[in-house]
Amino acid sequence: MPHIALPEDMPGITAGFAFRPETARPLRELAHILLHTSGNDGFSSRDRELIAAFVSSRNTCYFCQTSHGAAASHLNSGDPDLVESVCRDYKTSDISEKLKALLAIAEQVQIDGKKVTTQLVEEARQHGATDLDIHDTVLIAAAFSMYNRYVDGLQTWQPRNCVMYVEMGKRMAEEGYCPPSEPVSFGM
Amino acid sequence: MPHIALPEDMPGITAGFAFRPETARPLRELAHILLHTSGNDGFSSRDRELIAAFVSSRNTCYFCQTSHGAAASHLNSGDPDLVESVCRDYKTSDISEKLKALLAIAEQVQIDGKKVTTQLVEEARQHGATDLDIHDTVLIAAAFSMYNRYVDGLQTWQPRNCVMYVEMGKRMAEEGYCPPSEPVSFGM
Repeated sequence: MPHIALPEDMPGITAGFAFRPETARPLRELAHILLHTSGNDGFSSRDRELIAAFVSSRNTCYFCQTSHGAAASHLNSGDPDLVESVCRDYKTSDISEKLKALLAIAEQVQIDGKKVTTQLVEEARQHGATDLDIHDTVLIAAAFSMYNRYVDGLQTWQPRNCVMYVEMGKRMAEEGYCPPSEPVSFGM
Repeated sequence: MPHIALPEDMPGITAGFAFRPETARPLRELAHILLHTSGNDGFSSRDRELIAAFVSSRNTCYFCQTSHGAAASHLNSGDPDLVESVCRDYKTSDISEKLKALLAIAEQVQIDGKKVTTQLVEEARQHGATDLDIHDTVLIAAAFSMYNRYVDGLQTWQPRNCVMYVEMGKRMAEEGYCPPSEPVSFGM
């Protein structure tokens, strides 16, 4: 049962969003930019969702790991095996060397930002990572250190319902994280 | 030296904001709502900044601890002793029982959201905390688990310059975290 009176029948972070729409807005916008609209050939939405699922698995946040894992799977032709292998041992999974190097950075950020070394950053660069790729990796890992704590710290309802997460992941992957009625305006 | 080519002479998170204005917008808006505009008699901006400084001290993030500590001090008649005592041992510091109970929740969120217990939440309630106070405490602690990792994960410049932080804290406490030219619009 949640620690506070959250709206019923809303899973995970969606209950927090409904309880406090003011903070939901920037929380959703941040995920929308980092995971959805910034994806490109060099650092795709699939790879960004994989980092989100990986960090959430390290934080053992069931809701975030499962929903973002489902989003990554949807962007990977619906195959869930890749997400599982990345969360189990990304170093031996079937992904690019560049993504492995970015996951190695995310792995340290999840523990403490100060554990990111010059060597890890250099390795990512050698595999083609740009400054923007490295920036976004650090911020995705940092942001999921927040989302995970928010979801678990309120003790939200996190149903063990595979079908629900598959549907949710599909919607997240296709539509992103901002309500369609409210387009995000970029720039300061 | 920062891990990526951040703008020079910009300390801490301000360099990340300048490097990536798209993500700066929601990051600033979130802090503005949680720390600045939501403060009220029951849960003031001073107390919210104290929680931000406390979580940052547990994450040993010099920039965030010092700047938000300076903001809390500015909101405490300029006296820095309270911030120091809260970061050292909040249980014996000169603050309300309610704030002690909220700090006890933040203390667990900094480690893992799942460590927040029903008992800790009940204690906060007994000292007058509302559901919104508890929600915002969880989210402030979660958000600083992000800001701290972002600032340290990029290895930003964090000068050891007390006067700079006093000035920065004064500005944060008085103006908040959004550029004055861009008022925050609330609601989804």
